[in-house]
Order: sequence, then C-alpha cells, then structure tokens
Amino acid sequence: MSHIMEHWLEKRAHLSPHDTAIETVTGEVWTFRQLRDAACDLAKRVASIGPKETSHIGILSNNSVDMILHFFACTYLQCPAVFFNTRLSIAELKQQCDIADVEMLLTADQYHTIGKELADEKNLPHYTFREVKQCQPLSISVATDIDLDVVCSMMFTSGTTGIPKAVMHTFNNHWSSAISSALHLGLYSSDKWLACLPLFHIGGLSIVIKSVIYGMPIYLLETFDEKQVHDAIMYQQVTMISVVAVTCQRLLHVLGDQRYPDTFRCMLLGGGPAPKSLLEQAREKEVPIVQTYGMTETCSQIATLSASDALRKLGSAGKALFPASLQIWQDEKQQSTGQIGEIVVRGPMVTKGYYQRPDANQSVFQNGWLYTGDVGYVDDEGFLYVVDRRSDLIISGGENIYPAEVEDVLLQLSAINEAGVVGIKNQTWGEVPIAFVVLSETIDQETILSHCKKNLASFKVPKQIHFVDDLPRNATNKLQRHRLKEWGTKHQA
Amino acid sequence: MSHIMEHWLEKRAHLSPHDTAIETVTGEVWTFRQLRDAACDLAKRVASIGPKETSHIGILSNNSVDMILHFFACTYLQCPAVFFNTRLSIAELKQQCDIADVEMLLTADQYHTIGKELADEKNLPHYTFREVKQCQPLSISVATDIDLDVVCSMMFTSGTTGIPKAVMHTFNNHWSSAISSALHLGLYSSDKWLACLPLFHIGGLSIVIKSVIYGMPIYLLETFDEKQVHDAIMYQQVTMISVVAVTCQRLLHVLGDQRYPDTFRCMLLGGGPAPKSLLEQAREKEVPIVQTYGMTETCSQIATLSASDALRKLGSAGKALFPASLQIWQDEKQQSTGQIGEIVVRGPMVTKGYYQRPDANQSVFQNGWLYTGDVGYVDDEGFLYVVDRRSDLIISGGENIYPAEVEDVLLQLSAINEAGVVGIKNQTWGEVPIAFVVLSETIDQETILSHCKKNLASFKVPKQIHFVDDLPRNATNKLQRHRLKEWGTKHQA
Repeated sequence: MSHIMEHWLEKRAHLSPHDTAIETVTGEVWTFRQLRDAACDLAKRVASIGPKETSHIGILSNNSVDMILHFFACTYLQCPAVFFNTRLSIAELKQQCDIADVEMLLTADQYHTIGKELADEKNLPHYTFREVKQCQPLSISVATDIDLDVVCSMMFTSGTTGIPKAVMHTFNNHWSSAISSALHLGLYSSDKWLACLPLFHIGGLSIVIKSVIYGMPIYLLETFDEKQVHDAIMYQQVTMISVVAVTCQRLLHVLGDQRYPDTFRCMLLGGGPAPKSLLEQAREKEVPIVQTYGMTETCSQIATLSASDALRKLGSAGKALFPASLQIWQDEKQQSTGQIGEIVVRGPMVTKGYYQRPDANQSVFQNGWLYTGDVGYVDDEGFLYVVDRRSDLIISGGENIYPAEVEDVLLQLSAINEAGVVGIKNQTWGEVPIAFVVLSETIDQETILSHCKKNLASFKVPKQIHFVDDLPRNATNKLQRHRLKEWGTKHQA
Repeated sequence: MSHIMEHWLEKRAHLSPHDTAIETVTGEVWTFRQLRDAACDLAKRVASIGPKETSHIGILSNNSVDMILHFFACTYLQCPAVFFNTRLSIAELKQQCDIADVEMLLTADQYHTIGKELADEKNLPHYTFREVKQCQPLSISVATDIDLDVVCSMMFTSGTTGIPKAVMHTFNNHWSSAISSALHLGLYSSDKWLACLPLFHIGGLSIVIKSVIYGMPIYLLETFDEKQVHDAIMYQQVTMISVVAVTCQRLLHVLGDQRYPDTFRCMLLGGGPAPKSLLEQAREKEVPIVQTYGMTETCSQIATLSASDALRKLGSAGKALFPASLQIWQDEKQQSTGQIGEIVVRGPMVTKGYYQRPDANQSVFQNGWLYTGDVGYVDDEGFLYVVDRRSDLIISGGENIYPAEVEDVLLQLSAINEAGVVGIKNQTWGEVPIAFVVLSETIDQETILSHCKKNLASFKVPKQIHFVDDLPRNATNKLQRHRLKEWGTKHQA
C-alpha cells in the first residue's frame, strides 16, 4: 500500500483553481490557486532561513490567512509545524519549544516581542510573518508529493504529570479525519465552513485541511465574536460551524427569537461536555446541533451524533465515525451496554503517539487502541455518552487545563508546600480552576497569583486560592482528586 | 500507519442499521443490518464447504441480492472473491479458474450446469446460491476487521498476449475509489445509486462498495433494461447512475422530449469513449452527464469531469480525482500540454498488480505509476482527452475485447494459419470485432464461427470473417494493427 499522494494543496489548486478557499470578514477572498502560489512562494522564503528537511517549525499566531499560508509553507518544505497556543505564558512556550525540539520560530507580527525573547533564550532563528515575506526566496523545488506516514503537525496536550506532550499528527491522520467527517456529515457543493476556533487547536486546523481536501470555502475569523459569527451564519451562506459549549451558548443568546437560514446545516459542538439545558435550548430554536467527541489525539472528531438522532439521543456524542471504532473498558474487561468505563478508540485518525515519549505512548496505546482516560458508556443502540473527561481534566471555554500543570507552577514558590487544583462549575466557561495550597511560610494571595500569571496562560490561573492545613491524600500519600473535587464543590456556593 | 479497519458492513450496520441498503425493481428492500446479518450467516454456511483462509472463491452470477450477499460472505471469510463474466464460454471460464487459482465456485442457480461442468473438470467444490443456503452453518467467528492491504476481489482483463490477467483489488483500492468518487461527486443524504452495470465488472461492484461506505441505498437491476432504468430515474428518486455509451444512448431515446427530475444529479458515463453526438444530445436534453475514465486496474474511476465543466469541455474525461495523479508520457519523456502520449496514472485506487504475473506487472508499473496503454493528452487547463484506448482494445457495448484473445481461439483451428482481429464502428455497440484469416487448408465460415461461439463470449465472436492471402506485417513480421484497422474501416462500408 503506497503512502505517497500528491500534495493536497497542489492537487486542489489543479482541480479547482478558481474556487474560493478562504473568505474573511473584511471581504478578502483567496482562491485555491492563490493560496497554493502564495504558500509555495513563502516556502521558498522560509527555506532561505535554513531549516533542514523535517526541521520542526514553531508557529505562534492567532487565526489569519498568513497563519494558514505559513502552515502550508511548512508542508511544502516537509517540516512538521508545531502549533503554540497564543494564550500561553513565555515560560510555557519555552517548555514546549524544548519538548517538541523546535528549530525555528515563525510568529504573527503581534508576537514579535515574545517570539524574540523565546528565540534568544533558545538560540533559534525567529521571523515574524512580515519578516518572512522580506526574505529572498531560494530557488528550490518544493515538495509536490506528501508521504502519509510523515508528521504534518504537532499540538500540545498535557496529562496527569503536568508536563505537556506533543501530539504528532501525520498526513494520514488529517486525511482520515477529513474523510471520516465527510462520510458522516455529507459533502454538499454549497458547503462553507466557518472557522472561529483557534487554528492552533485541532478543531480549528481540521477545518483548513477539510477546505483543501473537499474544495470547500472557509469563512475565517480571527477569533470568536458572537456578532460576527451570527452575521456570517445569517447573511454569508455559511453552512457549517464548529463551536464549543460556551460559544454555542453565546450564539443562541444573540439568535434570540430569530431562526438561522435553512441552508445552515451543522453546528458541530465539541470540546467537552455540553450542558443539557444548552442542547434543549438549541432544540427549541431549531439549531442543527451535531454533538461530537474528539481530542487532539484523535485529530478532531472521532464520534459524532447524527442530526437526525439529535433529539432522540440528547446528550450523546453519537457513534464512532466510519471507519473508527470505540469500546468501553474497565479493569481489563470490555464493558457491555450501559456499563461505565474508560473510552477506548481506534482508527486511522488516531495519532501514532506523543513525540519522544515512549513511556506515555506505552501507557495509552494497547494493540492499536488508544485509551483516552475519558469515562463513558454506550447505550443499547450503541450511542456513546461521555460521563466525564479524564478525571483530572478541567475544560474552561473549550480550553483544556491539566491540574498538574497548574500545581507544578504553584509548587515553584518555596512558600507553598503542597498544592491541589480542581475545577468548579462556572456559568460562562463551563469550569474554572481553583487551588488549595498548604504553606510552609507566609505568602499572600497576590504574590501567588502574580507568579501564576507570569507562568501560565490566563485561563489556567486559579480563580480562587484557598489556604488549608492539609490536602486529602490516601494511604500511599496520593492526592485524592475526587475528594478535592468535593472541596471544590463546597467552595462553589 | 495501521492498515486495520472495522469491516465495512459491520461498521455500516452499526451506524445505520435501519437505513436502506438495497431496493430492487420488485420492491424488495434490504436494510444494512439485514444485509450484514444475512452475509454473516452465509459466510458461516460457506465456511462449512471448507475454504481455507484466503482461498480464492469464484463467483458466477448476474446482478442479484444473492450475489452481493455471497460477495460479502467472502469478505467475512477473508477470502478474495474472483468475479467471472457470465457471458464467457466454458473454455474461457476454465482458463480464468486456473489463472486466478480458484479453489471453490459459487454460482447463481441458473448457472448450475455450467458451474458443475467447470467444477468437475477442475476438481473444485461447486455450490449454487440455493445450495449454500442449505448448508449447515459452522459456528465460527467471522472477521470483524479488514486489513486494507489484503486482496478483496479479482476481476479479469486481458492484453496484447490474449491471456487474461486477474487484477487484484485490495480493500484499500476499493476504499480509496469510493472516497475519491465522493470527493468529486459530493455526498448527499438523498443519494440513491442505480446499479445496472454488471457487478462482475468494477463499475458495478464499486456501487455496492460505495453503498456500504457511504450508507447510501442502491437500486439494483439484474441487467440493463432501458424502460426499467428510465422509470427508476423518473419515479424512484434515483439520483445517480453509472452507464456506458450504448446504454446512455438507449436511455436518451426513451427519454424523448421528457426531462429527468431535478433530483437526478449524475449520469456517470464510463467504459470507453463516448461519441460527441451523444454528449451533444445529452446536453440538449439537460441530462447531467458526468464523463469518466477508468479501468479495472484503477478500481473504477480515476479521472472524472465535473458537471459544471461538462459543456465547456465536451468530450473530456476531466481531471484525475483527488488524490490521484495523471501524466502523459511518450518515449520516456513526460509530454506537455496538448501533446499526445500514453496515459500514466497513480493513486491509492490503482491495483497493486496482476495475480501471479510478475512479468506483466514489471511492464506496466514504473516507480509506482501505472502505464495504462491508453492514449490521450491534457489541454492547457489540465483536462484529459482520451484519444484512443490501448491501441488494440475493442470496446463493444462497454465490454472490453482483446483482439489477441479472439485470435488465439481462431488459431486453435489447424486450418487457420494466421489471424488478425480488429474492431469496426457499429451504431449500436460502438464497435464490434471482425476477423481476417489466412488459411492453410479449406474451412468454411460456419465451422469457424461455431468454434468461436464454443470458446468465446458471444460479444467477442467476430461479426465478419474475411479470408485473405496475407496479413499486413512489418519487417520483423509483427502484425501491423494500424494497417489492419484500415482494412477494417474499408470493410465497414
């Protein structure tokens, strides 16, 4: 079985050169040929900076056409693109550069200063998108084929240890994700997908990949702005959009008593559990919510509910997409209908692993199945219900927060002896993190918060700090997160 | 990159158990779950006949639900299904059994006698579909996964030597073909594909595979009947159909001054060149003709014209499907725009080769590209025009006839010293074969024809036999087919 394919953007530019690839809110329009030409040109300019083949190139940017072009430039150079969350602190970015062996940094112009600081410390070449455009292009031949087995992109996730892991997405993962999604949602010539999720998250990047594979225009927003998104759905012939619970909620609020046009056929709702009240509200407003379950490791969706089952199976994330598979396991036994256990998945969209983390890979992969750490069950018709994301994960406005990561930062302060972080419910964000700390010497809340703000993305900074005498631990001294959760719930009132 | 996937019919029956898989003209309806249950049951019955894993199972049948069920039964047993053209002579069938190492034969009830004769001679187990149903099922576990690299089906093609070759279709070939077609034609929830092409040809079987992968109903006809097909398009909500030039012509005739419903969105026209007059006629009648180019070796379509380009690029077969590639080569040089040469293709739907024919494989594959032997060019926008199928190929009503195969049969008669077969134009069938023979002793036309009828499918039997003193040969005594073509043209008048 050959793993070689014509480069997707080459192929698409050949098939539908004059079709629209990207529209922006300012009325900018890019055709596939323009996208291809500009990406190839950029690749030759980036090449002049001197990356080796397969060098890892970091990209720090919010959504923009430039960001998309630089991503494709990386693919033309056969260099994996390493995506950074723009909300991360400089300390977090430094750590991720190390973890993913980033050898070059490309940033949006607005991240000039942060990029420079990062690059100086790590002794990396750093160029802003504007500076890349000023580089002299090398007269090289860019890759016109891709190898499906090669890593296309990397994105970070964390876990129980708090140390981020770089999830590798091969071209085959992206290809399979786009195909599986199309087999589920259909492919209509009128489709236009609104991209307002950050492209540095898989839910965003996957829309860009779909655009090129399907030959479908995307309507690109720099960030989620409920008014802009609402207008795009109402008046710009958008047919599909990816949202998370908090953005969905805001859209429904703006929608009020209006109804979306009939041509709007899919609001793909992912990024964590959705409150039932939200789904009911959507049903009342006849919004075509399609609930989905996925994660960075599955290169976006792996299970999705059909619109036709949305009412009948409210709250379900559907079934594993064609051709993926899903099972529930507990204590090394596959669970039967209705029994709760760990969600275990398999499919060509599932990552081949974390970059240079054989330990982590060994613990999450077994016989080609990924153990997600998430908890759920399937009902008698095979529909998945996600009961809980991996027990320690806090999801705040669609962003994942790993308590261990926040705890690590707290423990950097010598005055803090022990730290436990937990999520509490929040009406706007779903959850927010709060911290419980045991002190060895006096320190005030402000000092702690200012240290956190310096070292953590703002969404990860604890919204409350509680000083306690002890943390709940079991006999082997392991932090009892479920008991910490109970403490958190108490403090919610 | 893992090559393991959940068995498609398992997966589909799980995803959309109650959706329609097959409708027949008699009103029979099969859901995907029914199809899956019946195919699994059959697999256990076939297993009782004792095939080994990976035994090659021959299937001789016209289109029927039973034929589809037996095909899927083979996949559940991980045995490649070898498809025979029901129009072949017993001699041809015997030869193909040998070539493909067939170890068991399953036939439609109507082919009981021919199957028995074949099986006796080859010492193979032979069961009709009715007999299989009477076998006691073995209590085995059928395959719930498939390996994409494994051979799923085999179909025959011939070539310059006249000896048929078994083209191997892996699961990945079928998967990629279905995906590429969907990326080109779209995937609509209202789709229903009419299958009237023989399922023992790739153009027919590919519809069955698409049905399961897309979750799309097919409307199955035993054979092409213009009135039935017309009615299905007009009144049965059929949205897609695959045709060849001759059947297309007949449909347009039945259509008369009527128009197909707007929901009918694609008449996929393949199986050889289409006369321009036919395309013009279709345009006048607003029939959504989508011209396509493909062959057994490419597991059906590899290039297809967009409906939107149909008028602008009349006569073109479009561009290579996403993610396939296509080039024109001549004398070991890639040809540029407008230059005629051999059509060379690459893509995941292209066969990995002919079964046990390393010689043939070596001559048609180079660096992962398949040299089709067909002749064409691409215009300045990249659209393919097929000028001529491999020079010696005769296409008659969508069936391929290889002159060498017919010549071999003629030469079996000791009275015939030399034979040359060529196609002449025919209004109904596109082309029909005629023969030129040089005799060593007297023999009459009837004896020759009766020998041909015994050894060849009727569509391959020469429609004229011309006795000549010599055949046109070059200095090295090689038959000059182009000059024979000129002779043929003369005899057409």
